[in-house]
Amino acid sequence: MNEQVLLYEGKAKRIYATDNPEIVRVVYKNSATAFNGEKKAEIAGKGRLNNEITSLLFKKLMDAGISTHFVEKTSELEQLVKRVSIIPLEVVVRNIIAGSLSKRMGLEEGTLLAKPIVEFYYKRDDLGDPIVNEDHISALSLASTEELQQIKQLALRVNDELVALFNECNVRLVDFKLEFGKLEDGTILLADEISPDTCRLWDKDTNAKFDKDVFRRDLGNLTDGYEEILKRLGGLLCSK
Amino acid sequence: MNEQVLLYEGKAKRIYATDNPEIVRVVYKNSATAFNGEKKAEIAGKGRLNNEITSLLFKKLMDAGISTHFVEKTSELEQLVKRVSIIPLEVVVRNIIAGSLSKRMGLEEGTLLAKPIVEFYYKRDDLGDPIVNEDHISALSLASTEELQQIKQLALRVNDELVALFNECNVRLVDFKLEFGKLEDGTILLADEISPDTCRLWDKDTNAKFDKDVFRRDLGNLTDGYEEILKRLGGLLCSK
Ligand SMILES: Nc1ncnc2c1ncn2[C@@H]1O[C@H](COP(=O)(O)OP(=O)(O)O)[C@@H](O)[C@H]1O
Ligand SMILES: Nc1ncnc2c1ncn2[C@@H]1O[C@H](COP(=O)(O)OP(=O)(O)O)[C@@H](O)[C@H]1O
Ligand SMILES: [Mg+2]
Ligand SMILES: [Mg+2]
Repeated sequence: MNEQVLLYEGKAKRIYATDNPEIVRVVYKNSATAFNGEKKAEIAGKGRLNNEITSLLFKKLMDAGISTHFVEKTSELEQLVKRVSIIPLEVVVRNIIAGSLSKRMGLEEGTLLAKPIVEFYYKRDDLGDPIVNEDHISALSLASTEELQQIKQLALRVNDELVALFNECNVRLVDFKLEFGKLEDGTILLADEISPDTCRLWDKDTNAKFDKDVFRRDLGNLTDGYEEILKRLGGLLCSK
Repeated sequence: MNEQVLLYEGKAKRIYATDNPEIVRVVYKNSATAFNGEKKAEIAGKGRLNNEITSLLFKKLMDAGISTHFVEKTSELEQLVKRVSIIPLEVVVRNIIAGSLSKRMGLEEGTLLAKPIVEFYYKRDDLGDPIVNEDHISALSLASTEELQQIKQLALRVNDELVALFNECNVRLVDFKLEFGKLEDGTILLADEISPDTCRLWDKDTNAKFDKDVFRRDLGNLTDGYEEILKRLGGLLCSK
């Protein structure tokens, strides 16, 4: 039994080995970080909410035919996922201008884009996750041209599904970050998490923020928004 | 006569109207700037050298069949060019890792790339010229997808020609910045300048720098390197 072998500890989750070499156990933490780890806090309930929301969204995406690493949610803070080798790219899809895009390009936050923007960031905390283009990705051998095309297509499909889903909840999906991984045979799977930590989610009527910007910008109680998202997604509210 | 109507003054050149609405007069300045204008100096001889080197390189590129704005060099500091509406992108081609690429990506300066990297920067001094991808360019309507493909192809052709030319001079073309413009009818022309202000040029034997990094990094007398480039390119040395 090697259930306690910690394979990796990140800012939001711990990854443990299981008896099955193809499966890993993800344990969600209550840590909140922002600005590349400069701002930190422990927020009770965040791990549970992100685990539940991610599980719910990954199931919906799999129902829609998208291949993901998700296997099953096994407890409040834990899920089992297929072990992949993570492609070190943060794939950001944007529907509405916000955050770093607004700052970098001098564009007003809240403006609807005519079509989604896909951005790739090199996942390297020590470099501050620099934005990269397809030539950089190929020079660094982070992904082949074919893999990158596949990743971009997948990201846009995920966007279509999630925009529709959140729309039904009266929530605007402003932007979000995805990670992809590869199985031994080269199959690309959607991996990591999709939660209010990794999405910007605004109420359609009031523009209230239900996401990590509440923490980044000190706008109130973070988990209230996360609870609201879970509630609207029809999950179990306060299943303590 | 409107020969003295200043249309635009940039950091390195002034653009004047001429009697012909399709032609503008470019006057090269001796100003050197770096780090988005934070570091400044007047350097005697720089305007003359950049005018001469740019004229020489644009003629070579036109001989190779590349469409440019260049008409003729009319004096030490001046040239006539076709008036274009500048596409607000700085198109950077890189053959060897240096400068901002090295810093942003944590890669060692001097490493040869397996194939050239093309980067686009949104030409906006007030935003510090942020790097952009094709989705940003299309969202900002800076160029159409077709125009961008054409610009990228043109930039790579210019690279092939210049690499070969500098190679004959025992100089490595590390990287360079291009600007493109459009005529009224939509034709895309290579515009602006190609000089040691806008290229990184290293001696193939000693790696000595013959470019603006000498100014950026306080490595010695800037114009010595520019004179050396002009001499090696077979131009008129010190044609005062
Ligand atoms: N299916 C998977 N197999 C292996 N690693 C994964 C999988 N899904 C996510 N990971 C990785 O788990 C790590 C922990 O997640 P997280 O705490 O969010 O890390 P980070 O601080 O890098 O954001 C990340 O490096 C993430 O890429
Ligand atoms: N053929 C042309 N027609 C019109 N403008 C041009 C042409 N070629 C270059 N320019 C523009 O001339 C301006 C002056 O050049 P420069 O001093 O290098 O400006 P900058 O400070 O923007 O680098 C730049 O905005 C450049 O894009
Ligand atoms: Mg993470
Ligand atoms: Mg310039």
